[in-house]
Amino acid sequence: MTSTSHVYYGTLVHSLSLKELQVIDQGVLIVKDGLITHVEQNVKDVDALLKSIQLDAYELHRLEKHQFLLPGLVDTHAHAPQYVFSGSGMDLQLLEWLNKHVFPAESAFKDVAHADAAYTKVVSRFLRNGTTTCSWFATIHLESCQRLVDVINKLGQRAYVGKVNMDQNSPDYYIETTEDSLQNTKRFIEYTQQHSNGGLVTPVVTPRFAIACSSTLMKGLAGLAHDYKVPIQTHLCENPDEITFTKSLFPDSASYTAIYDDHNLLGPSSYMAHCVHMTDSEIDLLAERQTGIAHCANSNFSLHSGLCDVRRFMAKGVKVGLGTDVAGGFAPSIIDAIRSSFFASKTIKALERDQHGNKDYDYLQPAELIYLATLGGAHVLGLQDTIGSFVPGKAFDALWIDPTAAHGTVDLMGQESQEQVIEKFLFTGSDRNILHVFVNGRRVSGSA
Amino acid sequence: MTSTSHVYYGTLVHSLSLKELQVIDQGVLIVKDGLITHVEQNVKDVDALLKSIQLDAYELHRLEKHQFLLPGLVDTHAHAPQYVFSGSGMDLQLLEWLNKHVFPAESAFKDVAHADAAYTKVVSRFLRNGTTTCSWFATIHLESCQRLVDVINKLGQRAYVGKVNMDQNSPDYYIETTEDSLQNTKRFIEYTQQHSNGGLVTPVVTPRFAIACSSTLMKGLAGLAHDYKVPIQTHLCENPDEITFTKSLFPDSASYTAIYDDHNLLGPSSYMAHCVHMTDSEIDLLAERQTGIAHCANSNFSLHSGLCDVRRFMAKGVKVGLGTDVAGGFAPSIIDAIRSSFFASKTIKALERDQHGNKDYDYLQPAELIYLATLGGAHVLGLQDTIGSFVPGKAFDALWIDPTAAHGTVDLMGQESQEQVIEKFLFTGSDRNILHVFVNGRRVSGSA
Ligand SMILES: [Zn+2]
Ligand SMILES: [Zn+2]
Repeated sequence: MTSTSHVYYGTLVHSLSLKELQVIDQGVLIVKDGLITHVEQNVKDVDALLKSIQLDAYELHRLEKHQFLLPGLVDTHAHAPQYVFSGSGMDLQLLEWLNKHVFPAESAFKDVAHADAAYTKVVSRFLRNGTTTCSWFATIHLESCQRLVDVINKLGQRAYVGKVNMDQNSPDYYIETTEDSLQNTKRFIEYTQQHSNGGLVTPVVTPRFAIACSSTLMKGLAGLAHDYKVPIQTHLCENPDEITFTKSLFPDSASYTAIYDDHNLLGPSSYMAHCVHMTDSEIDLLAERQTGIAHCANSNFSLHSGLCDVRRFMAKGVKVGLGTDVAGGFAPSIIDAIRSSFFASKTIKALERDQHGNKDYDYLQPAELIYLATLGGAHVLGLQDTIGSFVPGKAFDALWIDPTAAHGTVDLMGQESQEQVIEKFLFTGSDRNILHVFVNGRRVSGSA
Repeated sequence: MTSTSHVYYGTLVHSLSLKELQVIDQGVLIVKDGLITHVEQNVKDVDALLKSIQLDAYELHRLEKHQFLLPGLVDTHAHAPQYVFSGSGMDLQLLEWLNKHVFPAESAFKDVAHADAAYTKVVSRFLRNGTTTCSWFATIHLESCQRLVDVINKLGQRAYVGKVNMDQNSPDYYIETTEDSLQNTKRFIEYTQQHSNGGLVTPVVTPRFAIACSSTLMKGLAGLAHDYKVPIQTHLCENPDEITFTKSLFPDSASYTAIYDDHNLLGPSSYMAHCVHMTDSEIDLLAERQTGIAHCANSNFSLHSGLCDVRRFMAKGVKVGLGTDVAGGFAPSIIDAIRSSFFASKTIKALERDQHGNKDYDYLQPAELIYLATLGGAHVLGLQDTIGSFVPGKAFDALWIDPTAAHGTVDLMGQESQEQVIEKFLFTGSDRNILHVFVNGRRVSGSA
């Protein structure tokens, strides 16, 4: 028995590399069993092409003028439970904010029914905003972490999901023993690998950050990641006070970054959120370990963490993706992350000019922002061969964008170039301009 | 013959001052002929109250749980013609950007049909996003400026509208003689005063900026503003290169700000956009002249102009409002301006901490952002007795906010405090959470 192919005919927009955005006119993209089988460009006669390919059964979907397909957006760092207070309580910087807002909210996820309701809201909202792949932090609670996996499976997102680990410097009401933390992580990994929705969902080892994790716990987690071949995510160098406190806890390590390295937590499958305040040698260490970073500009603004200059990382070959860091960042949207990353980059440019007389700082261009939001994020997660661009053999994780959608937020005058239309979507578009959201070929959300 | 009163019963949220946000529970707000006649709080029995007031004829509108009324948003600085390229072309800083993107786009507004189509889009979009009052820059073309007034009248916005003046340092294809500039401004003022839609629309004298205006023109414009008793708007200290060039053109003035003062353009009815790079004595001069400023954070990010520290202005008693500066800023929304102003303020806080060891910098709180977006903007425009808060005698310019709107962008868990609900609307809400937009008591837009 053969399955139906889906043929998309119209403009395709995707990144080939950081600098190269490819806009394919009259493109044909064919999907079978969730995977891209063909990508053709400049096809004048789609019917003739399809005849020559001899597809058994197919449905043809024609994109209209100004519409285009974009790879699904990748969020490399978000906290699912924190969405309950997203948009509120950004009054403090990191360590105070954790105690006042985050830990009380996360501890409530002991209640699985609460978790189910909240996780359904946040995953639905992320999908609606075009986030086809997300790397989630959950909480320390095994059962509600498993429920997050269930919810993601039900809603059809591609995801990395982490049970958070915290065995020190945490409030009495929200802490676990080292043994429980390791044991429950092991169980969570096994559960998630057994409920992976055909490989869409992956467990990720998730020490919250060095402050909240003992050496024993971090070493144990590194061992689990190694044994089960799963990736590792955590936070790094977000805020000056956090850095000072962290270094005081691990005086034998040469730097905050070195703490993770000394516990075997850095490697090609690891990725670190924030990295706002890093020395050159710390960046070198990430580069050497092939560890990527999640750039979370909205959060860095909202918690006044500081400005992360991603150019420094990219210049040394460190992989960079975008993260919302909900709810340090208030926006559950990588489209917003594109805009806040643009603001951060433009601010660095202004400061370079005004404080250092450097007029040549190269801020992030729209094409680069699209890369970071798609293929760049895929690289950070080690999914560059699976998602992030329109290449035969990759999964069809994609957004069908309609800049002219009747209730959309983009206004066109009609004479815009394709490049302008794409920029207008990036800067003024919203979920209402995303007609369909596909993960692994399946429509999972959309405004149409 | 008596007109029907409209009675709104529910939560009212408005600013009493920069620091004081008043949340009125069980509020009753009564509107007659566009004006607020009563505001009551803690009304348990609205029917009894209405009986006691003895209204002749009224309609009662009950707000539901979590819904609230907010004063209409005030945009103190936007360029109506630039909306056609909003969200694109933010690749350059100010002077280069004007030449490459702005002047070609604005010159096309010589065509009144083009102006009509574009102005209808931009004013509709602003209203939809809750901007009940806007201070617009148009172009140099008299006829299409008049058309903008017609469009605004038709759509029902409260507005200040300026015909732009440019008689020097402008491209051949987009410049006017000093005489034409003054003559057409006079005609524009008279036209607008005759087509004010019952006082909703006001002409504003609008020299583009000192670079583009000769001394003769600026003095003539100051004379017109005086003779016709109309306000004055222009740009000030947006970008370092602009400031250098401006000062070279007017070597007899002590500063960029002093140039306007020397041409009689500063006063209680004047307001200046941007003011990013200002010396203390320039701020003092604004304070002395009682001249306000339009803070346009999105634009300052997007054109990498720099960070405007509005605390410096407020500390000296200078009036501050928010502006989108479309299309230097890409977002046609004061809700966005609230968020980008928050980002700018948080960035200043981080830089104060990291560069100056100052941990006490007081970033803009949500309550202050609401003030700036409503009553603060009203003060800048000299409309503080007409709009900006819910006070008997003021016009009913208001938004009916529904944070739980079915297709809205806010997610509530249900247990949020009223304060949290307001914050969530500010940071995650959108036009879809604005059910109704009222100007002068009349519904002019809304998602319901
Ligand atoms: Zn985080
Ligand atoms: Zn402007």
